[in-house]
Amino acid sequence: MRASRFDILGLGNAIVDVISRTDDDFLAAQGLNKGGMALIDEARAEELYRAMGQATVISGGSAANTIIGMAGLGCRAAFIGKLKDDELGGLFAHDIRAAKVDFSTNFSFDGPASARCLVLVTPDGQRTMNTFLGASQNLTESDVDEERVKDARFIYLEGYLWDPPEAKAAFVKAAKIARGAGRKVALSLSDSFCVDRYRDEFIGLIRSGSVQILFANESELHSLYQTADFDTALGQLRAEKILGVVTRSEKGSVVVTGDEILTAPAAPVEAVVDTTGAGDLFAAGFLAGLAKDKDLAICARLGALAAAEVIQHIGARPQADLAQLAAQSGVTL
Amino acid sequence: MRASRFDILGLGNAIVDVISRTDDDFLAAQGLNKGGMALIDEARAEELYRAMGQATVISGGSAANTIIGMAGLGCRAAFIGKLKDDELGGLFAHDIRAAKVDFSTNFSFDGPASARCLVLVTPDGQRTMNTFLGASQNLTESDVDEERVKDARFIYLEGYLWDPPEAKAAFVKAAKIARGAGRKVALSLSDSFCVDRYRDEFIGLIRSGSVQILFANESELHSLYQTADFDTALGQLRAEKILGVVTRSEKGSVVVTGDEILTAPAAPVEAVVDTTGAGDLFAAGFLAGLAKDKDLAICARLGALAAAEVIQHIGARPQADLAQLAAQSGVTL
Repeated sequence: MRASRFDILGLGNAIVDVISRTDDDFLAAQGLNKGGMALIDEARAEELYRAMGQATVISGGSAANTIIGMAGLGCRAAFIGKLKDDELGGLFAHDIRAAKVDFSTNFSFDGPASARCLVLVTPDGQRTMNTFLGASQNLTESDVDEERVKDARFIYLEGYLWDPPEAKAAFVKAAKIARGAGRKVALSLSDSFCVDRYRDEFIGLIRSGSVQILFANESELHSLYQTADFDTALGQLRAEKILGVVTRSEKGSVVVTGDEILTAPAAPVEAVVDTTGAGDLFAAGFLAGLAKDKDLAICARLGALAAAEVIQHIGARPQADLAQLAAQSGVTL
Repeated sequence: MRASRFDILGLGNAIVDVISRTDDDFLAAQGLNKGGMALIDEARAEELYRAMGQATVISGGSAANTIIGMAGLGCRAAFIGKLKDDELGGLFAHDIRAAKVDFSTNFSFDGPASARCLVLVTPDGQRTMNTFLGASQNLTESDVDEERVKDARFIYLEGYLWDPPEAKAAFVKAAKIARGAGRKVALSLSDSFCVDRYRDEFIGLIRSGSVQILFANESELHSLYQTADFDTALGQLRAEKILGVVTRSEKGSVVVTGDEILTAPAAPVEAVVDTTGAGDLFAAGFLAGLAKDKDLAICARLGALAAAEVIQHIGARPQADLAQLAAQSGVTL
């Protein structure tokens, strides 16, 4: 296998988060499904934004959050995602490059504005997301550079990419190139409603060998195997004989392979402020461990650490030095 | 005097803050004056932004922060400031309206982009500001609606408005209308370098009776009277026979009139995260107290409470319910 230029290449919707604190009454009045991610069009995005309170704007995007977290843990990282040449697009590009992630996808110069996610955070720390995909829908196969995919040890794909039809084609192309080059492909299931929309296709990716590492939270796992029983779902995941990583919020995580089951606790948290990005950062810590050839228990510990950092402040991008947190916890990367 | 429609009308540069954590080495490498506010042009703003780390974008602007804080304390509030019709301008307008502040200044449709302030926060919580005034330079006298000024019990003006020449004319017009209508005018000195630039004019405003309430921190007061001795400076302020409010960070505040001197302690703070907006929010609490006809000791307590809230998180806009904080502290508004 050729030498790798990157530890990780992520492919995802390039999204800026517009985050506002609210209460359950507002969610109810707006007909929002608490804890979920809904796709909205531009008119609805404008309407909801007008109704929202003062906001904090921070770059986000599920896979991008993961890749940034990995860069913060010392991984050589790259990202592919589509923006428009507008102010929010400039913010996203600035932030991902400032995090030392290689990012060179061409901007769109016409069509819809850069994607934004209106994130409503309730006092319990739960986040409810409303995504206008905008320019991220313009990600196409031509944005996936074959050499770049071959140059990365791991490829990370978010399930949300299945929503824009062109982006799905880009996803499939990247997975195919990676497989041909003997690289490992990781998929995050993103959201239980996303799994509902594309269940058969995600299972197809797993069973065809296109995906070797799967990240899911409990509700995504239940949705994937259409069962309310955790052990049944976990048994089905084990039977796939891939590396499966299931996050369970404060209950920690479960890692399964064909041969073993490993459970790991969550990291201690003083106060949950905003759970946006918890799963993304768990994946960041876990994959950074894999990229540094750590055993699965260490990978799960790194995942828990990174997730704990991101839920203690507003926004889905880490604010602390993750490598330093890992070192303090006794993990040398 | 006619009935008032607003308790407060603020006039200021309409600015969005782009906030990034950094260290003293970065400030030194960029030749930045720690703790100060420097005016920069667009090219320098782009250069500095490229060098900065990942950022959080939150609406700011000194007077705007004060007006928003007052709205949060139950005051009927309005703001005048100039934006361009671009994404950052849209963010600012959304946020100030979401805070229930009356804001109807016309946007610019050409010329420079909406103003932004690149705020660098060091681990000690100190903020170093670099402001590209952009569209806020297009605020003109015609943006100051005479009826609106007459309709407000208090007018609040930031010293920073002296920087854009057209905005200064708008400031002078507003002060003149307010004076004619028997309204009270408050001035914030903004920054010691700002005082250095316009010392004689600010003293002229005070001595001509155009300004009846003055907000300053220690270094601004020292700069105003060109003395390093606090008591000397305070004596000179008393001799002006206006209401003078001097903030002294963790040492609290001193309120002087021709007749009395009153000192008040700072409010307790768990950890200083970002001092941006401390002075703005002190002014908000103090003026809200005046608008609610509280005595000066209560005004100073409200100022300290609001300032303590804003320095415990990133950004210069309050995140907590200030009216609730005041109530918990025993002040009914």
